Amino acid sequence: MSNDPLVIFTPSGKRGRFPLGTPILTAARQLGVDLDSVCGGRGICSKCQITPSFGEFPKHGVTVSDTAVSPINAVEERYDRIRGLKPGRRLGCQATVQGDLVIDVPPESQVHKQVVRKAATARAIVMDPATHLYLVEVAEPDMHEPTGDFERLRAALAEQWGIDGLTADLPLLARLQPALRKGNWQVTLAVHRDHTGGAPRLIDLWPGFYEGGLYGLAIDLGSTTIAAHLCDLTTGEVRTSSGIMNPQIRFGEDLMSRVSYAMMNPGGDAEMTAAVRTALNDLAAAIADEANLDPRAIVELTLVCNPVMHHLALGIDPVELGQAPFALATSGSLSLAAADLDLSAINAQARAYILPCIAGHVGADAAAVALSEEPYKSDDLMLVVDVGTNAEILLGNKDRVLACSSPTGPAFEGAQISSGQRAAPGAIERVEIDPVSKEPRFKVIGSDLWSDEPGFDLHTATTGITGICGSGIIEAVAEMRMAGLVDASGLIGSAEQTGTPRCRPEGRTHAYLIHDGSSDGGPVITVTQGDIRAIQLAKSALYAGARLLMDELGVDTVDRIVLAGAFGAHISPKHAMVLGMIPDAPLNRVTSAGNAAGTGARIALCNVAARAEIEQVVRRIHKVETAIEPRFQEHFVAANALPHATDPFPELSKIAPLPQVSFNTGGGDGAGGRRRRRPR
Amino acid sequence: MSNDPLVIFTPSGKRGRFPLGTPILTAARQLGVDLDSVCGGRGICSKCQITPSFGEFPKHGVTVSDTAVSPINAVEERYDRIRGLKPGRRLGCQATVQGDLVIDVPPESQVHKQVVRKAATARAIVMDPATHLYLVEVAEPDMHEPTGDFERLRAALAEQWGIDGLTADLPLLARLQPALRKGNWQVTLAVHRDHTGGAPRLIDLWPGFYEGGLYGLAIDLGSTTIAAHLCDLTTGEVRTSSGIMNPQIRFGEDLMSRVSYAMMNPGGDAEMTAAVRTALNDLAAAIADEANLDPRAIVELTLVCNPVMHHLALGIDPVELGQAPFALATSGSLSLAAADLDLSAINAQARAYILPCIAGHVGADAAAVALSEEPYKSDDLMLVVDVGTNAEILLGNKDRVLACSSPTGPAFEGAQISSGQRAAPGAIERVEIDPVSKEPRFKVIGSDLWSDEPGFDLHTATTGITGICGSGIIEAVAEMRMAGLVDASGLIGSAEQTGTPRCRPEGRTHAYLIHDGSSDGGPVITVTQGDIRAIQLAKSALYAGARLLMDELGVDTVDRIVLAGAFGAHISPKHAMVLGMIPDAPLNRVTSAGNAAGTGARIALCNVAARAEIEQVVRRIHKVETAIEPRFQEHFVAANALPHATDPFPELSKIAPLPQVSFNTGGGDGAGGRRRRRPR
Repeated sequence: MSNDPLVIFTPSGKRGRFPLGTPILTAARQLGVDLDSVCGGRGICSKCQITPSFGEFPKHGVTVSDTAVSPINAVEERYDRIRGLKPGRRLGCQATVQGDLVIDVPPESQVHKQVVRKAATARAIVMDPATHLYLVEVAEPDMHEPTGDFERLRAALAEQWGIDGLTADLPLLARLQPALRKGNWQVTLAVHRDHTGGAPRLIDLWPGFYEGGLYGLAIDLGSTTIAAHLCDLTTGEVRTSSGIMNPQIRFGEDLMSRVSYAMMNPGGDAEMTAAVRTALNDLAAAIADEANLDPRAIVELTLVCNPVMHHLALGIDPVELGQAPFALATSGSLSLAAADLDLSAINAQARAYILPCIAGHVGADAAAVALSEEPYKSDDLMLVVDVGTNAEILLGNKDRVLACSSPTGPAFEGAQISSGQRAAPGAIERVEIDPVSKEPRFKVIGSDLWSDEPGFDLHTATTGITGICGSGIIEAVAEMRMAGLVDASGLIGSAEQTGTPRCRPEGRTHAYLIHDGSSDGGPVITVTQGDIRAIQLAKSALYAGARLLMDELGVDTVDRIVLAGAFGAHISPKHAMVLGMIPDAPLNRVTSAGNAAGTGARIALCNVAARAEIEQVVRRIHKVETAIEPRFQEHFVAANALPHATDPFPELSKIAPLPQVSFNTGGGDGAGGRRRRRPR
Repeated sequence: MSNDPLVIFTPSGKRGRFPLGTPILTAARQLGVDLDSVCGGRGICSKCQITPSFGEFPKHGVTVSDTAVSPINAVEERYDRIRGLKPGRRLGCQATVQGDLVIDVPPESQVHKQVVRKAATARAIVMDPATHLYLVEVAEPDMHEPTGDFERLRAALAEQWGIDGLTADLPLLARLQPALRKGNWQVTLAVHRDHTGGAPRLIDLWPGFYEGGLYGLAIDLGSTTIAAHLCDLTTGEVRTSSGIMNPQIRFGEDLMSRVSYAMMNPGGDAEMTAAVRTALNDLAAAIADEANLDPRAIVELTLVCNPVMHHLALGIDPVELGQAPFALATSGSLSLAAADLDLSAINAQARAYILPCIAGHVGADAAAVALSEEPYKSDDLMLVVDVGTNAEILLGNKDRVLACSSPTGPAFEGAQISSGQRAAPGAIERVEIDPVSKEPRFKVIGSDLWSDEPGFDLHTATTGITGICGSGIIEAVAEMRMAGLVDASGLIGSAEQTGTPRCRPEGRTHAYLIHDGSSDGGPVITVTQGDIRAIQLAKSALYAGARLLMDELGVDTVDRIVLAGAFGAHISPKHAMVLGMIPDAPLNRVTSAGNAAGTGARIALCNVAARAEIEQVVRRIHKVETAIEPRFQEHFVAANALPHATDPFPELSKIAPLPQVSFNTGGGDGAGGRRRRRPR
């Protein structure tokens, strides 16, 4: 043995001696080197490409000669001719050991590729999805030793891939015999193995070698909007993302009104279940269509949502979630057939994984945010706020994590806002207001230009300017406050009070005009007094939830804040703090994580170990119930005003000391309007 | 410890010392005594009834005083008042140890009761079905330690019954919360655990204590008829049995014509699948109705069938079974949701277990016959013949078992017989013909009387006399042969030739009149020349199959023959031997087992260990393929004649030396008719 050539793999550094003629792929497997293969070494799939290095390697103590690897063979020549091999690349299953070797495994040949996430604080996702492809060669039937085709398929998978005990549902058994014969006893299997050690499950099969790839959907099912990312299960790449409104809005805009609908209307829960499942199907079909993908290639999905949506999607009456003690029917993760959720638009055997819930008001979406932002691994004390119709709030570090949810209402998602819309092309997502001229400029989704930059009209010609989304309304209200158009109580001033005709009367209050598209038949987009009130309610609820957790932990400040939101541009930390959505913190310690719940869903989709991890983590998270906590109400009431965004934030360089505006419109407008103050 | 009272259980003899005050049920459990309980010791279910014995027990070395068991308590008093306790009986969960005790566990209090089978060669079935009932008491939700109701239910089942890791499908999760609250946090669970160590599965749940019992269906799905037994899963009792025709007959009477139908008609296999599943549903609904049972109480079924029916029931195109190498899509056992077979007439979560197939022509029905008759445990060389449209034949002993199937056609099931019908009330199932007067007498299903006995007309007034079933036609043809009405070639003689006007011309041949009901508007029941030919073909196929296995084993005789058949009275060994259906054997070594395939299905239904057993056994059975074996054709042709049932069988005392009849009708009737022989 010690005379056998030495083979060293980079970057892993794994090494071993192998007899002359050993295929590189075989050597890699025996050493546990992470080298991909779908066809199992048949020279078909080309996943096992490697690059032999030649010359002196003092670091490794070897010299590699040109003849240390077998010459390019017919299989490789053919592959290179038809598909092209990069210079220096070889097929690991064809090239054999002929002397001491140093073999580099390029990143795209690794099974457990790392996918870098885009967000600033991103950790990499290690690819290890539940479903993989395997090419197997099945023994032909023998009349004298009769066994079923499926039993021989199962034996082949065990022998060729070490995967024992495959199971298959009847529709796949029904397709097995023609596929085996058409593929001349070779079939590619999509096999699902979960993290609980359950039996491997056949998801699909194709005659011969299947090259179409496997995909999964990471779905964030919110009260107001449903977002889905279509991910390539091999590369982790997000092929396309899409979203639609949750059709349950017609049964009630917030969660509790949907629970009430279920309580008041016999069969109401089933009606809502049907509505959301139809929407999920439509979304899945649309996203496959958009990606120009055979829906059959979508073999998995992960789903995150709040507890009420969780129950309604699962077909469980959410009535218990509407009253103390807010008992969930089930809190654990669920591994289901997607068909159990009536999802017929994707592969008929696709699997669905639903993340665990934390408590009756803190759902799988909060668990997904935790998985994405990992407060439970942090040295800093982190506050993670997921802004939605129901806000999920996590506070903690590696020692302890607390969680609660807060009923913010749909304003942050652009609903219940006069010009609000979901984050889609045409929606205003960024707003700036000049503190002197009081003139706005803005960006819309679909264009990189600000509205006052040349070419903006051309950029937005196809999408139009259609409304304002969640991140847009947050910025608009904060900018209005900073520009002195709104006082601390939230009241919008008149044109006379503010000095700009954009503050126009609307009923007994005023509204600020952001964009008038009426000359082109487009909408007039304003921020109304009602919009400001909706944002005030929402942000107070959010702030009160965060404060409650801080009280529980006995802290007055946090080290780091992460703002997450399902839709649109990332929420601007500066504007969030101007609004008073979140507690004070140094601005450079506040980051925006985009759709963290969706990211958590993506992580669970791409890596089965993450499923086990979050199942462990949720058991350790301590839940605080806002609904029965008197201090929550106190914090809520106290947080109603729009704070003066001045000194604490020197980073907000643009913000001049704010005019201490306070308006009296004479018109009744709730508490703010009742207090008679003298205008400046 | 050694001062603690001694408690001895009978009949097991298990003994141990327990502290004063220990409930008898607790003592039994700790000793592993087989004492039933559904409610887990709450004094609700009454399953744990025991009888304390008092006095001197020299054999056990103890004296039991009257005060060695606690006095009857309030729970027992109440139970006795409402339901009645047999004298001497106590509830094992209420009565406690107060001194040395001898406790008898009556058979009905044992979980693993033995159910004696009726057949002569019967072994007992030990009750151990996959699905049991458990009453659990679930912890109420706690807002401060939020967990799902299902998670608390699972924990309760683990803690109170030692059953870990319960799983439940969504429809049950949807029913959990109302059931728990209605039952005041007590629910009865039906939990299914299979023999493969898979996770326990929730099948159904009821608020509080459920007393309705659990039932299962053992289904024998034949080519021509479908039979089902409804079994009580606690006692093993067969509540009712029922059968219907297989509606696939309209696609082809024998299996190969159904395979041809699938080959010739796109979607033909799906059409046949739908037909048989509808029939299974109808049968299940009818049987529940007949037993006056809530179909929801039917929580399991076992299914046995030949390979073509197996594939068609599973929704798999059987085309590969129509051509060598006769590859099964799957040969292993299957454990499915009954809903996967579209069975909606029983519990929505019911499970189906399908026995393994032995080979492409030897199905799960043959496996069931093996399980019932156990040739693989026999010292004798056994020949087991299951008579149906396709006959399954097993030959062997504990050293080796061979199997084959033989395409007998549907004649033995009463199909393709002019007056044939399935075995149902009104069908003639026994026939005798007086060798002197040539007059017949018969029995019909539904009456114990022979047709010439007083009261017969009254007995059959409601059912009528409607036709002749499989066992009836076998006896009729054999009796006609013994009475000299049919010659060795199978030709029916004329009235002149036979001396009875019952032999009437019919076309160019003759028919024998068994019953003329036309005066009452009933049918005229005859055995025609065509019927005889159909029986000859069928019996030749059967005989040829048995001979082929004997050749393979190198034997000329067997020690024991078991005749099994799905329907009607047991097949008469005597008549089977007169017909030449089976090889020669001493008549007292030939037994009739009734529906052995159905019995095998019942055994697998009532005892999960039997499922593991048969899965092991089928792997050891050696399969012989009749379709490609030239000797099968030779044996088949050689076996066409009706042998002279004389000397070899002295037990057939009734049979006088037969007249060596041979008829020439002048009419062409195949080979027999063509040979011109002189009538006596």
